[in-house]
Amino acid sequence: MAGTFVARLRAKLDAGHAPVCIGLDPRLEALPAHLLPDAAPAVRISAFCREVLAAVGAHTPVVKPNIAFFERYGAAGFAAYEDTCRHARAQGLLVIGDVKRGDIGTTAQAYAEVHLDLADAVTLHPLLGKDSVEPFLQRCATTGGAVFVLVRTSNASATELQAHKDSAGEELSDAIARCVHQWGLGLGDARDYSSVGAVVGATYAHELLRLRARMPRALILLPGVGAQGAMVKDALGAFDANGMGGLVNQSRGVTQCFAPQDPDWLAQVASAAQSFARALRDAMRTRGPAGATP
Amino acid sequence: MAGTFVARLRAKLDAGHAPVCIGLDPRLEALPAHLLPDAAPAVRISAFCREVLAAVGAHTPVVKPNIAFFERYGAAGFAAYEDTCRHARAQGLLVIGDVKRGDIGTTAQAYAEVHLDLADAVTLHPLLGKDSVEPFLQRCATTGGAVFVLVRTSNASATELQAHKDSAGEELSDAIARCVHQWGLGLGDARDYSSVGAVVGATYAHELLRLRARMPRALILLPGVGAQGAMVKDALGAFDANGMGGLVNQSRGVTQCFAPQDPDWLAQVASAAQSFARALRDAMRTRGPAGATP
Repeated sequence: MAGTFVARLRAKLDAGHAPVCIGLDPRLEALPAHLLPDAAPAVRISAFCREVLAAVGAHTPVVKPNIAFFERYGAAGFAAYEDTCRHARAQGLLVIGDVKRGDIGTTAQAYAEVHLDLADAVTLHPLLGKDSVEPFLQRCATTGGAVFVLVRTSNASATELQAHKDSAGEELSDAIARCVHQWGLGLGDARDYSSVGAVVGATYAHELLRLRARMPRALILLPGVGAQGAMVKDALGAFDANGMGGLVNQSRGVTQCFAPQDPDWLAQVASAAQSFARALRDAMRTRGPAGATP
Repeated sequence: MAGTFVARLRAKLDAGHAPVCIGLDPRLEALPAHLLPDAAPAVRISAFCREVLAAVGAHTPVVKPNIAFFERYGAAGFAAYEDTCRHARAQGLLVIGDVKRGDIGTTAQAYAEVHLDLADAVTLHPLLGKDSVEPFLQRCATTGGAVFVLVRTSNASATELQAHKDSAGEELSDAIARCVHQWGLGLGDARDYSSVGAVVGATYAHELLRLRARMPRALILLPGVGAQGAMVKDALGAFDANGMGGLVNQSRGVTQCFAPQDPDWLAQVASAAQSFARALRDAMRTRGPAGATP
C-alpha cells in the first residue's frame, strides 16, 4: 500500500494544500445546461464530475463524492460513482466515499470489500457498534484506508437522538466519540492520528472542542460550511497547532456556485475551490492558540 | 397505488400466509456450485435469487434482499439487486429493500427516490433524526410504501450505543421507538399499523415488549432467528391477538440451508421456507394471550 490515509494527507498538506475537502453531490437540476443535455442522467453526472475534478484538483487534497446522488440513477449511477472515484484517484486525489453504510458484521464485510476498494476512506454509521465497524478496520489495515464515523451530523434534527443524555449529562455523540477513540487504538502510528476518524458538523461548533477532547487521535471531517450555515472559523477547533487534525468540507458552495446557463461555469468552480482553501488558510493563520498534537 | 404496505400485508395474511419474511443475502461462496459456475458474480447472484424467489413465493408474503451482497459487485451487482426486486414484485411478493440508508434531508431525498421505486419498503438508520426520514415518508405517502427504522439491531455489539441510558433509565432504543411512533402519526389508517415500522432483533427478546409499548402502531421486522441464535418464539411479543404486527425474518436458514454441491438444493430451500412459516404459525397458535390491537 502507498501509506496510510493520514500519512498521505499529511504529505499533501506539507506540499502546500489547505486541509479542505470538496464534496461532489451532483444534482441533475444544477448541472451546466449545455453539458451533454441529451445524454442519460448517469452519463451527464459522470461527465460533470470529471470536469469538476480537473478544475478543483489543484486546490484540494481530498474529494468526497456522496453516493446517494449517483445511486439515485440505479446501476448506471453506481457505474458513474465508480468512474468518479477512479478518475479522482488517478489524479492523485484522496477520495472519501460518503456512503454512510452501517450493517451487522457479516454484511459489513461485503460493504467494506467494495467501498474501500473504490475509495481511500468511507463514512460510516456507528449505531450497530463495533461489529459493524470492525470489517472496515480490518480492510483499512491492508489497504491503508480510513473510516470517518458519524459522531455529530450537520443537519437540523441531528440532536433529536445524538443529544440523548446519560445520567452524567454526556450525550450519545460523546459516547460515539469515545468509541471512535477506542476503535482507533492500535491502528496507525500511535503518535499520529489514527485510521478511525469522525464526522462532526461545523454547524455544531460549540460541541466540537468537547468532542475533540474525547477522541484526540481522530481526524475530523467537518461538513456544514456554506449552504448549511456554518462558517470556516466554526471548524477551527478540530485542528492542532500544525494545522492537522481536520478536513473542512464544502459541497454546494463549489459545485453549485454557478447558474446552469453560464458558459464559464468551470472557471467559477475552480475559483470557488481556490477561495475556499484560501479562506481556511487565512482563518487558521489568524486564530488564537490551538490544542496540542495527539 | 395498490394500497398501503400494511393493507397489502394484511391481505396476504388473510389469504393464509404466515407473517414471515425471507431474507436474500446471496454470498458467492454459498451458491449452488453448478449454477452458472463460469458466469460473472452478479449474473450468478441474479440467477440464484430468481430461482429462490420462485421456490419460496408460495411460503412467504415478503422478501428482504440486503443490498450489501449485491452492491459488493459494483454496478453489475446493483443491476442484480434491481432485477431481484423487479422479479419479486412481478411475482406479487412484497419487497423490503434492506438498504439501511441514513443521510441528511437533501441527500435522503435522492435515496428515497430510487429505493422506494425499487422496493415496497426500506430499512433506515435513525441517527440523523426526522430530517433524514421525512423524504422517505413523503415518498411513502404517494407510493403506499413503508419504512422500517433500526430500533434494536440483532448483532452482538448492538447494545454498545443502542443501550445508552438517560437519567430515567431509558435506553437510546426506547427514544428511537418513541420517534418511530411520532413519525408514524397521521401516516396510514389511524386505527391500523402505520407506514413507519421498526427493526427489533429477535435476539433481544427481553426488550421487545417494552419497545412494542413505545410504538404500538409500528409493524416490527424481526431479524436474528436461526444463525444469529434467536428462536421463533422470541419474536412473538411483536404480534397482536390477530397475528398481525410483526414480520419474522429468516435469511441463511432458508437460502443457505443446502450444501453447494447438492443438486436438490432448490427443493431444500422451498422446504426450509415452508417449515419456517409452519414453525411460526405453530408458535403463534400455542402461545398465551397476546397484546391488544393498535
